[in-house]
Amino acid sequence: MPCSISSRTNCAPLNSPAVETQVNFMGLMGSSDELSAEERLIARYFRPLATSPGAFALGDDAATVTPPPGCDLVVTTDGAIAGVHFLPDDPPETIGRKVLRMNLSDLAAKGARPVGFLLSIALPAAIDEAWIAAFATGLGEDVKHFDCPLLGGDTDHTSGPLSVSIAAFGAVPQGKMVRRSSAKAGDSIVVTGTIGDAALGLLLRRDGTLARRWRLADAMSAQLRRRYTLPEPRNAVAEAVLHHASAAMDVSDGLVGDLAKLCRASGVAAEVNVARVPLSDATRVAVAAEPALLETAFTGGDDYEIVLTLAPGKFSAFREAARTAGIATTEIGCVMAGQGTRFLHGGTAMTFARASYSHF
Amino acid sequence: MPCSISSRTNCAPLNSPAVETQVNFMGLMGSSDELSAEERLIARYFRPLATSPGAFALGDDAATVTPPPGCDLVVTTDGAIAGVHFLPDDPPETIGRKVLRMNLSDLAAKGARPVGFLLSIALPAAIDEAWIAAFATGLGEDVKHFDCPLLGGDTDHTSGPLSVSIAAFGAVPQGKMVRRSSAKAGDSIVVTGTIGDAALGLLLRRDGTLARRWRLADAMSAQLRRRYTLPEPRNAVAEAVLHHASAAMDVSDGLVGDLAKLCRASGVAAEVNVARVPLSDATRVAVAAEPALLETAFTGGDDYEIVLTLAPGKFSAFREAARTAGIATTEIGCVMAGQGTRFLHGGTAMTFARASYSHF
Repeated sequence: MPCSISSRTNCAPLNSPAVETQVNFMGLMGSSDELSAEERLIARYFRPLATSPGAFALGDDAATVTPPPGCDLVVTTDGAIAGVHFLPDDPPETIGRKVLRMNLSDLAAKGARPVGFLLSIALPAAIDEAWIAAFATGLGEDVKHFDCPLLGGDTDHTSGPLSVSIAAFGAVPQGKMVRRSSAKAGDSIVVTGTIGDAALGLLLRRDGTLARRWRLADAMSAQLRRRYTLPEPRNAVAEAVLHHASAAMDVSDGLVGDLAKLCRASGVAAEVNVARVPLSDATRVAVAAEPALLETAFTGGDDYEIVLTLAPGKFSAFREAARTAGIATTEIGCVMAGQGTRFLHGGTAMTFARASYSHF
Repeated sequence: MPCSISSRTNCAPLNSPAVETQVNFMGLMGSSDELSAEERLIARYFRPLATSPGAFALGDDAATVTPPPGCDLVVTTDGAIAGVHFLPDDPPETIGRKVLRMNLSDLAAKGARPVGFLLSIALPAAIDEAWIAAFATGLGEDVKHFDCPLLGGDTDHTSGPLSVSIAAFGAVPQGKMVRRSSAKAGDSIVVTGTIGDAALGLLLRRDGTLARRWRLADAMSAQLRRRYTLPEPRNAVAEAVLHHASAAMDVSDGLVGDLAKLCRASGVAAEVNVARVPLSDATRVAVAAEPALLETAFTGGDDYEIVLTLAPGKFSAFREAARTAGIATTEIGCVMAGQGTRFLHGGTAMTFARASYSHF
């Protein structure tokens, strides 16, 4: 058909506003008076987070990602549901950041530099503009801090709880993603930061009376709660992990269970010296008051630290690189031939009721 | 610390089974007796879908994607919630496929070849192994058919409805992703396949008595219902779109609203000749019985066809390439300077109560 349908004077332009309840972030181009209320909110609050040229200012159906020359893209996804992975009374400013950080932690453990992310949100009816604004503002801080722009996303309304799912992308030199399956007998086992703070922080958030029972000063209690609400992924050591680690994964479901996974994937065994596992002062105080919390610390979730293995003689160089990045690292044990992971406490292997954190 | 924690005879290996309710697909390596029940299900049913070497058989925290040399990765995300984007009684075999196809449709419209996808599922408690098996079996058929392997994912339990979110990746030559913002006055407007079948199919699924009122033979009614339950994304024409289209997007929220979005993004106007919009025989029969269904067909969602624009003179080459791929294409109108989109019906512009499909 030739393009011959000429304009006719009786043809009013179509201006029916879109009444969408599913809004794909990808495709918000256009003047604001033609957008639905929800599209306007997304354009106002989320478009500023879409700083990558490949996001096309959220104005298309899809975004493009071009890994730097010679690089693979590392892709990962993690989601969170209100009441399961975060508490319903968490401030909206931290919810998106926490989910982004869960994903950034995976990238860090794989030695990858963040490139960007896709965001999917299922919103209950109670969510209002103030909530969206706060959610996006918090997320925007992390977009800047971790240099990880929003590439696109979609929102839906749900009759269920709020849920946030992110797919994040990072870059590593081709073929160099740090695997969890490449630990070797004789390697040392290293963790970043401190273990168990978030697990104790979650208990403190659920029961405010525990702080007194655990003899925690207010600042210590606040610090533990903060570690649960807003984890600190170790992206600053990603490059050191890339250059030095023989294997690595992030500690998100408890050190005991995650190290066991790494060992199974690598076909090796591990022994950890419990006395060497790094605990924060706050966690030490709590464990001194209630020794059973040591198991909680080792098997609780949400650490978002990195557990990695290093070939013999590599620790000092790695520790130095991590120190330069401002992150403490501790050798906690070693990889051996065989299978099974043992946490040795004064010569005895600890036994755990369960190795990994359950969100329920 | 030197690796000197030697094995001790009193140290039983740690065999506490993981009791996880969040399971990241990425990290299922290991012998099956060490996996939780849910991990076993995922390993059994989803690992066969992870055919890309970069998925590491779902055995790591992340996957790698390497776009072919000279290519950008196109990334998109779309999710679906039971009762909103699919019906609660949809067979599990089609649910994952529908969500994958929603994403594949975006890739097709951008001229991209599928590379792989990440899957996030929030499962209500009622889901059992038979459901998971059927879900994965259906999805696996599309993984093969569209050559789009599973790269990873995660599952969670939710107190809300079943929801499935996918992030899909495709490849296009660098800088060549077909945009929705690049239509030019004088271009012709083309759509693939037929418009409106899924919208009528949804109505038929909701009210079985309509088939009789619309005078549809059983086969026609089944065909329309099928178009809603399991759309047919037009990935077979992606390469032709890449080579020929000046702009394109997929038709997922209704032709009227989606064409309006393309025009807004491109800063142009459009006129569509309603008589040329391709309808299936089944939709023609229904519209003949109930003329108001024409508006439903033009504004209803879930077509997953492609609307594209072609510079003057390009249609015959595009139509030929699409025909070779087995897909019908129809010129329905033209792009003009100005703004607004008009659907001209016997010289009069149709007006629509709303331009886009609402899922509620």
